[in-house]
Amino acid sequence: PQLLLRRRPASAGAFALLARPASSASGGLPPLTTEIHPGIKRGAFSQLTDADVSAFEAIVGGDHVIKDADEVLSYNIDWLRICRGQGQLVLRPKTTEEVSAIVRHCNKRRLAVVPQGGNTGLVGGSVPLFDEIVISTSRMNSLLSIDPVSGVLVAEAGCVLEQLDREAASQGLMMPLDLGAKGSCQIGGNLATNAGGLRLLRYGSLRGTTLGLEAVLPTGQVLDCLTTLRKDNTGYDIKQLLIGSEGTLGIITKAAILCPARPKSVQLAFLGLDSFQAVLDTYRLARRSLGEILSAFEFIDSESMRAVKKNLGLSCPLGEHSFYVLAETSGSNETHDREKLDGFIESVMSMDGCATDGTVAQDAGQFAHLWSLRERIVESLLVDGYEYKYDVSLPLADIYRLVEHMRTRLDGRVIRTAGYGHLGDGNLHLNFTTPKFDAKVLELIEPHVFDWVRDRRGSVSAEHGLGLKKSQYIRHSKADFAVRVMAEVKRLLDPNGIMNPYKVLPDE
Amino acid sequence: PQLLLRRRPASAGAFALLARPASSASGGLPPLTTEIHPGIKRGAFSQLTDADVSAFEAIVGGDHVIKDADEVLSYNIDWLRICRGQGQLVLRPKTTEEVSAIVRHCNKRRLAVVPQGGNTGLVGGSVPLFDEIVISTSRMNSLLSIDPVSGVLVAEAGCVLEQLDREAASQGLMMPLDLGAKGSCQIGGNLATNAGGLRLLRYGSLRGTTLGLEAVLPTGQVLDCLTTLRKDNTGYDIKQLLIGSEGTLGIITKAAILCPARPKSVQLAFLGLDSFQAVLDTYRLARRSLGEILSAFEFIDSESMRAVKKNLGLSCPLGEHSFYVLAETSGSNETHDREKLDGFIESVMSMDGCATDGTVAQDAGQFAHLWSLRERIVESLLVDGYEYKYDVSLPLADIYRLVEHMRTRLDGRVIRTAGYGHLGDGNLHLNFTTPKFDAKVLELIEPHVFDWVRDRRGSVSAEHGLGLKKSQYIRHSKADFAVRVMAEVKRLLDPNGIMNPYKVLPDE
Repeated sequence: PQLLLRRRPASAGAFALLARPASSASGGLPPLTTEIHPGIKRGAFSQLTDADVSAFEAIVGGDHVIKDADEVLSYNIDWLRICRGQGQLVLRPKTTEEVSAIVRHCNKRRLAVVPQGGNTGLVGGSVPLFDEIVISTSRMNSLLSIDPVSGVLVAEAGCVLEQLDREAASQGLMMPLDLGAKGSCQIGGNLATNAGGLRLLRYGSLRGTTLGLEAVLPTGQVLDCLTTLRKDNTGYDIKQLLIGSEGTLGIITKAAILCPARPKSVQLAFLGLDSFQAVLDTYRLARRSLGEILSAFEFIDSESMRAVKKNLGLSCPLGEHSFYVLAETSGSNETHDREKLDGFIESVMSMDGCATDGTVAQDAGQFAHLWSLRERIVESLLVDGYEYKYDVSLPLADIYRLVEHMRTRLDGRVIRTAGYGHLGDGNLHLNFTTPKFDAKVLELIEPHVFDWVRDRRGSVSAEHGLGLKKSQYIRHSKADFAVRVMAEVKRLLDPNGIMNPYKVLPDE
Repeated sequence: PQLLLRRRPASAGAFALLARPASSASGGLPPLTTEIHPGIKRGAFSQLTDADVSAFEAIVGGDHVIKDADEVLSYNIDWLRICRGQGQLVLRPKTTEEVSAIVRHCNKRRLAVVPQGGNTGLVGGSVPLFDEIVISTSRMNSLLSIDPVSGVLVAEAGCVLEQLDREAASQGLMMPLDLGAKGSCQIGGNLATNAGGLRLLRYGSLRGTTLGLEAVLPTGQVLDCLTTLRKDNTGYDIKQLLIGSEGTLGIITKAAILCPARPKSVQLAFLGLDSFQAVLDTYRLARRSLGEILSAFEFIDSESMRAVKKNLGLSCPLGEHSFYVLAETSGSNETHDREKLDGFIESVMSMDGCATDGTVAQDAGQFAHLWSLRERIVESLLVDGYEYKYDVSLPLADIYRLVEHMRTRLDGRVIRTAGYGHLGDGNLHLNFTTPKFDAKVLELIEPHVFDWVRDRRGSVSAEHGLGLKKSQYIRHSKADFAVRVMAEVKRLLDPNGIMNPYKVLPDE
């Protein structure tokens, strides 16, 4: 039975920061990051003084300088609760000018800083390691403009993605990116990490959809590239350096995003398949049958599905399968879209060795529920205890071979080896869980998993970034000379190295 | 009467380099660029010696070192024939290693170079000014790989766009960009200038569709970022600096491009309209009715149409109108696409003050002919004599106001003030013609037209780049500090300033 629903509810499947499991792997606070990475030494930065704090209070006002240790703690711990920094101060500026004044002071005084948005990153990039000062963008949360004709939305960095999408919806538009963390993540952080997400397949990367950017560079100077023009070939595209720099080249303060028209019709098929080859075949069919309306193609393996069912109590409408696929369409004509989806499902079901079972969302509730089976996997795995999280790009043929290879390698040592991700982007999320952190397991995973990916010319970070956790593996995916150029760019823009140190680039 | 055709012929409307008018404005050779820009002084570069030439012959072989003055001449003159440089040597390397060896030598010896692809640029960026050595990429023209499943094409820089599109077609794919010069322009030049073109509206910019790049930097070092992965968040995206740098930061040698699926059905509607407001209203209707299958929306004013008809003898199937619109669809289902186009045309025709006349291409010949009315405008204007060419981005409401404003300003002094372009991108091509170069006319145009655009927060170069002709106007569209950062990046990558000097960045 098939029934179409008109629009994906903006809040479908969002996980809020509050929804994360109250207890971490160790049952309380995660260990200090410096204990897990004893090799990293504090840079030659100054120590914070009372005079510094007074200077910051003069800039942002006393209410927005957080010194209380309990309050500061949540800014020191990442969402996965695998990193804990030793920051002592959090600043919550309201304007670009305040960010600029803060950073100018820090640069002069050689005080290290960490920009922080929604703190939903998964590679330890958004929290301090030592005593870096946290600059939170949360109060910079105004939508500045939205033009229904050109589709351009201009917003401050601290705007939450889901809220922006709601505003876009009111103008017949949508944000070109969507990800599980949308209820908490901020657009500034999305840009700083070049977030990919569920619909990159259709709407492309933020490198194409970001028209303009304003940022405070590590010297405190304001880089104003906040154009709203679709085309502007006047000089080098400096803003691209900021996109994906994970806060190491500056703090993004505003952005202009090109929003596509909100689809009039959205449909979701959920299929059960019994081999990874069937997943690949189904993807090929989807591209052919659904063409320009295909807006997402996600796969989930049985181990991931078991985690969502057991750890979160979610129900799966299909029986047991090795794999599940979510194929979503977004289009402008419900009748046409429905015909295309019918055609796709007919082909899939009639093709030998392809899907064996399937359903189509019949209402907004089912739609949200099916998506939650995919979007809440990361949350469900945390319930197991400790999560070892990887995010790689690979040629399609190799994607699931890595999961099987690692499952064999870790047999008997982990609760779960789970693989899922964005098939259309060649992007695998690979996860292992143990009751507690197990150094021996980590040793079996790293650097082996990175080597395996490198040997197949994949990327050791498809969309999560390098952050603290993967910076030493950058050369697995980038040539030596390219890394040297990056280091030179870093030195050029951040001569004192105060901006999010220890992240992205490897030790020299 | 409507009939659909299945695919746009790859060669439709292409202009070849040979097609350009044999005589220029002055009836023979264009004046030396140094005569037109006497203010620009030669940089402190070395003079070419016989020893240099021998060194180059050892690298690329004697056959590929061009010294003959007549042969060198065509590399000194741009396609519009408004620039003539004084280069004495052209090198035609075959491999990245040869390019690297050449540039390494030039950097050590402080010899200035100009990278040159198809030499179809419109801002004087691809030809020498003084005696810069031309490094032509024409012999680096191998298609390296093309993957029908992932859609990724890898090619050397000298591959001609139209040929790549033909190769893509054989795998069910298409190049994500298309422009009038496709029969001559090379993919390396397209990337170096961040070419926009006719279908950016649908497939986005090269910043999103370029997955990987290889380039020789001004020191001769090879920057290898030639990944074919759709997602790769491992460090800064250095390749974005090369895209749109117009050959001032290095020579692009290879690229990996993500190609969309080739549409199964392509349709083209050609409409006559009697006001610019009607053009805007028609665009809004097209976005609503055609949704995800809209692949181009181009407008042509009556003056441009007159030039194409009179100067090239092309016929227009519609009567006289103030404006003409080409609305193209590309989709995966002919029946659905046709229904959508029918709906669009019905809405347009029934809406008061909208289109008054229209036709739909009924076969490949008509399709190619209708496109040629748009693609050959630039060529038709050259026939008038001398062409003053501008390419700006503006808010939609201001686009045609600029044409009307300039027409009034230049009344009686020019043959034509013609406006056309990519409406969906807010991109106007604004052109003036006189029988011969007229300094007084130029004075009336510049800087006035740039000031007008700046005052409306537009871009003084939407897609053509700054090259030599607009570099002094970069601050009209970019903040002072952004230009300073660009200059610092230039110094970082090109410490001796040998790579395409006098272009893009203004004099210090």
